[in-house]
Amino acid sequence: MPVQSLVDSARRKESVLVAGLDPIPSRLPEDVLDDGSTEVDSVRRFCFGVLEAVEPEAAAVKLQAAYFERLGPSGMQIYADLIAAAEEMGLPVIADVKRGDIGDVAAAYAEAHLSVYGAHCVTVNPYMGEDAVIPFVEEARRRDRGGVFVLVATSNPSAEAFQLSGEPPLFETAASLVEKLGGGDGDYPDVGAVVGATRPETGRRVRKLLPDALFLVPGYGAQGGGTDGVRALLDARDGGVLVNSSRALIYAYENSEKGYREAAREAARRACEDLRSIGARM
Amino acid sequence: MPVQSLVDSARRKESVLVAGLDPIPSRLPEDVLDDGSTEVDSVRRFCFGVLEAVEPEAAAVKLQAAYFERLGPSGMQIYADLIAAAEEMGLPVIADVKRGDIGDVAAAYAEAHLSVYGAHCVTVNPYMGEDAVIPFVEEARRRDRGGVFVLVATSNPSAEAFQLSGEPPLFETAASLVEKLGGGDGDYPDVGAVVGATRPETGRRVRKLLPDALFLVPGYGAQGGGTDGVRALLDARDGGVLVNSSRALIYAYENSEKGYREAAREAARRACEDLRSIGARM
Repeated sequence: MPVQSLVDSARRKESVLVAGLDPIPSRLPEDVLDDGSTEVDSVRRFCFGVLEAVEPEAAAVKLQAAYFERLGPSGMQIYADLIAAAEEMGLPVIADVKRGDIGDVAAAYAEAHLSVYGAHCVTVNPYMGEDAVIPFVEEARRRDRGGVFVLVATSNPSAEAFQLSGEPPLFETAASLVEKLGGGDGDYPDVGAVVGATRPETGRRVRKLLPDALFLVPGYGAQGGGTDGVRALLDARDGGVLVNSSRALIYAYENSEKGYREAAREAARRACEDLRSIGARM
Repeated sequence: MPVQSLVDSARRKESVLVAGLDPIPSRLPEDVLDDGSTEVDSVRRFCFGVLEAVEPEAAAVKLQAAYFERLGPSGMQIYADLIAAAEEMGLPVIADVKRGDIGDVAAAYAEAHLSVYGAHCVTVNPYMGEDAVIPFVEEARRRDRGGVFVLVATSNPSAEAFQLSGEPPLFETAASLVEKLGGGDGDYPDVGAVVGATRPETGRRVRKLLPDALFLVPGYGAQGGGTDGVRALLDARDGGVLVNSSRALIYAYENSEKGYREAAREAARRACEDLRSIGARM
């Protein structure tokens, strides 16, 4: 079931929010850290706590692979276990891996994240061209599983020097690749685009180039992008976006009297309402 | 000891060859597979066998992270153990991870590969701009360890659409980033460039832009790049390149009567001689 599992989940929950898990050890709550367990155990407990807390509000969960990789092989075991737990909850998982390699190597990464670890979708870096994207699309189709989000226009400032350079700018080349490779018989093509919420003008241009594509939208919340940045990305039916929020959710407890789970769930609920208020829906 | 450990190793061995470990399960020798052990065990035995076989001929070893990631957490344990074993042999390790993310996420990847796993150098994808490269450089300097190779002009055909597009072409933007971020007091700056052996014209241009940088050169051997492609990348002193060969070495046994270890060592020796014949030296 290609990217449709994400779409169905968003519709069922009336939520276009993707909850991102970025477990940064220095930001874990004291009550998670303070019982003498190892960093790995703390990360595990924190992630499972947040996952259960945000599940009712989120269309999907996004795992930032770097924070699991940083913990060595046992971090990758947490990553595996979180994917399995989310699957059991009926919550699709986007593996935010941003891998960018070619041919057999890309195929090995695709197999790793879509099959061995079992995520539903992955993010992919297109700097090495379509050779870097096709193996992921093939693996997703072979497994009848999820889809691929290609980095088109990311939300960080220094991306400009690369993605906005050239005529046409490079992000348009990346958008063409998304258009060319997408397919499947779901409501959206199985190749989508990562388009940040921080540059509305670029976002509108990408939406014009990809009127039917599903966008995974970072930069909302902690990175400074607001609902205006998201509005620029909506398709003609006010759909077509899944909006990620990571740190503003999972570290909401830092500005709250509540425990991290309750604070995360409340922040997720507010984010959902915020997104509904601009009419964003799947 | 920044990138100098690589340089010293190449000088000591009079070899600019980097031996790449890409353990593709379907290509493992029958005698490695046929004893009833698991795929993970077979990959482990094969990699350690090849590592010991090529060590005398290679300036460094490059681990292709995808093939270890593909085996799940226990694959990452092999990756960790190979890095430790190479370190013990005095052989610097380049972690070919091509990670491309920003800020704290990039810092987590950098910490993972340069500190937790302990590789000497990493490859990095610059599509998200300098935010994606700086955290790796900082981690390398903090650990007084190795360096960073930024993907500038890769060897695969479809890279053209991205890296050769624009005016100036994108690879020149990537080269400027290498120039800007490199530093340290070694014989070469601690930020180098990945430049393929398959496009001599582009290679000559990159060398002109980066006369003093160290290049990590893929595409030699199995990918069709020959000594001509390498010659185009040499600096004014016939130095400045480390040339990777992976599959032509480790699967040399497929076209040989010999066992995989002996075949790999012979192929490494021939590659070294081939590279010496064009005068390439560190």
